[in-house]
Amino acid sequence: SRSIDLAVIPGDGIGQEVVTQGLKVLNAVLPQDVKLETKEYDLGARRWHRTGETLPDAELEALKNHDAILLGAIGDPSVPSGVLERGLLLKLRFAFDHFVNLRPSKLFPNTATPLAGRPEIDFVVVREGTEGPYTGNGGSLRTGTEHEVATEVSVNTAYGVERVVRDAFARAGARPRKKLTLVHKNNVLVHAGHLWKNIFDAVATEYPEVTTDYLHVDAATIFFVTQPERFDVIVTDNLFGDILTDLAAAVTGGIGLAASGNINPTGAFPSMFEPVHGTAPDIAGQGKADPTATILSVALLLRHLGYEAEAARIEEAVSADLAEREGKAARSTDEIGDALAVRVAS
Amino acid sequence: SRSIDLAVIPGDGIGQEVVTQGLKVLNAVLPQDVKLETKEYDLGARRWHRTGETLPDAELEALKNHDAILLGAIGDPSVPSGVLERGLLLKLRFAFDHFVNLRPSKLFPNTATPLAGRPEIDFVVVREGTEGPYTGNGGSLRTGTEHEVATEVSVNTAYGVERVVRDAFARAGARPRKKLTLVHKNNVLVHAGHLWKNIFDAVATEYPEVTTDYLHVDAATIFFVTQPERFDVIVTDNLFGDILTDLAAAVTGGIGLAASGNINPTGAFPSMFEPVHGTAPDIAGQGKADPTATILSVALLLRHLGYEAEAARIEEAVSADLAEREGKAARSTDEIGDALAVRVAS
Ligand SMILES: CC(C)[C@H](C(=O)O)[C@@H](O)C(=O)O
Ligand SMILES: CC(C)[C@H](C(=O)O)[C@@H](O)C(=O)O
Repeated sequence: SRSIDLAVIPGDGIGQEVVTQGLKVLNAVLPQDVKLETKEYDLGARRWHRTGETLPDAELEALKNHDAILLGAIGDPSVPSGVLERGLLLKLRFAFDHFVNLRPSKLFPNTATPLAGRPEIDFVVVREGTEGPYTGNGGSLRTGTEHEVATEVSVNTAYGVERVVRDAFARAGARPRKKLTLVHKNNVLVHAGHLWKNIFDAVATEYPEVTTDYLHVDAATIFFVTQPERFDVIVTDNLFGDILTDLAAAVTGGIGLAASGNINPTGAFPSMFEPVHGTAPDIAGQGKADPTATILSVALLLRHLGYEAEAARIEEAVSADLAEREGKAARSTDEIGDALAVRVAS
Repeated sequence: SRSIDLAVIPGDGIGQEVVTQGLKVLNAVLPQDVKLETKEYDLGARRWHRTGETLPDAELEALKNHDAILLGAIGDPSVPSGVLERGLLLKLRFAFDHFVNLRPSKLFPNTATPLAGRPEIDFVVVREGTEGPYTGNGGSLRTGTEHEVATEVSVNTAYGVERVVRDAFARAGARPRKKLTLVHKNNVLVHAGHLWKNIFDAVATEYPEVTTDYLHVDAATIFFVTQPERFDVIVTDNLFGDILTDLAAAVTGGIGLAASGNINPTGAFPSMFEPVHGTAPDIAGQGKADPTATILSVALLLRHLGYEAEAARIEEAVSADLAEREGKAARSTDEIGDALAVRVAS
């Protein structure tokens, strides 16, 4: 009999609320014969305030034994910037070698895009997750003086770039439009840029059916708002991917719908699924948060674990739910979760 | 009697066409008693193909003697990516210590923004121009092999950050809304981010009348499309500024209207003014390029040289010209230049 052993990190702010709905829908969609076990980990701002810990080794070890991780949101204005990001969220991505940071962007029906004319938007960003300017490689000298020098080093390896580029080509090849765009800034960041471009071009020869394209990151932001329909799959560096996926979320109806997977495709470590949004402390605990991004992240989680039909059922339920909400009153976090749980079960 | 000694680098593609119109409007707006001298420099892709040179020392020296530089656009697909960018454009910005890369964004009347509802947009990005990931600091090891490691180092100094932050505070203080937003990514790029934030906060105490704000770069892209009216002056790092100003150009009616100044506020070296757009080889030589961005760059040039009234006349002319073009047929490069020259002269 099948089973899923899931680690759950609700985190801070609206994290707990949205994760509750994600689990509700997960329970509703899973076939009877699949046994779901969950274990909650108390990590995030509250834990840090209480104990000073971000991610103790024992918990990092324990997390390794799960099939996957569902994360709500991490962070609070009361914690100095960088402490939880580097000490928890990025630590997990790096420790578990989540080299594919997968972020689909789709303009669902009845969602409020800021773009005039509602273009067709349906693309996926494959963001590298373990290299680039995110490595924490850098430092500062004469800190706090007028002679301070602070550096940040973007580290890019052929090994790291090739594996994510291969993943992106495979994903592009499996989609109807079969188009892959590399986004970088190889006219300025020439060393990293040439490494990315050379590997991209080399792998492309193995995928003759995939149409390829290159854009500088600055130009890519223009097309995100003027011609988002031109994109199918995008592969890019960790920092460019961070920037582009927030912009993508904004043009596809907001961060409340943007799902993501921090994936280790080799299966050596558990993959982690989380909404792109933050903890939204201003609305936490009020039942106002939209759990849809978390529920769509559960779909990515299911697909990663091989439950393709169930993943698709969640995505279709979200699409149908949004299509029918026109003119309806705003719903609570719980009501949205309930509505989607009913849809996926039936 | 007053004089302006201007270096002109038309460059490639549509560069020559738009620069011709910029000079036409400059001639038309200048008072009779101001003597304008111009000297053209043949730099760019054609020169590189002919001689292999990007910016010879003798020309770099000669350029130093001018009051300012007007640049059209540099680059061609036939030149390997990075050669002209690093060897000419960035070389000039670095050699002449253009630490303020000034990029105003305004939604003019009758311009086609991709944003629904036409929000009010009128902000200025002060992009640092001589540090960050643009220093060319980095390299690659075992290049071209499966063991390649390529790095790009973002270098940030207290000296470099403080001077651009001070410039941005002064600009914000001189505007009606007096609001300055720092954009960085200090939750991940903690060393550079803390340097920027600490200096920003320290200088802020000297400008109590300026309201300040901080945004991560990813979140900033969201607000660019959902609430661009919230911005007044933005100060940011070289790479974030590159990305944000292309996005800003896109939401304010396109890159055809976006002007920029590469400014050395100390006057130690000539400042350089250029449209944000590229060489557009697909439409070069056809009289289809919109010279407005170059003409608006001429306004920035005049303001930098102390001709405030003339700068304002150009900006008002552009605004009036756009306001009246509704329903009119598309005009040629030359016709737009003529129309604006007539307006600023009268
Ligand atoms: C919170 C932060 C560290 C994170 C990132 O920069 O990756 C977030 O912006 C994201 O996109 O998941
Ligand atoms: C051409 C390129 C080097 C340049 C930059 O990245 O600064 C351009 O994009 C710009 O914004 O002026």
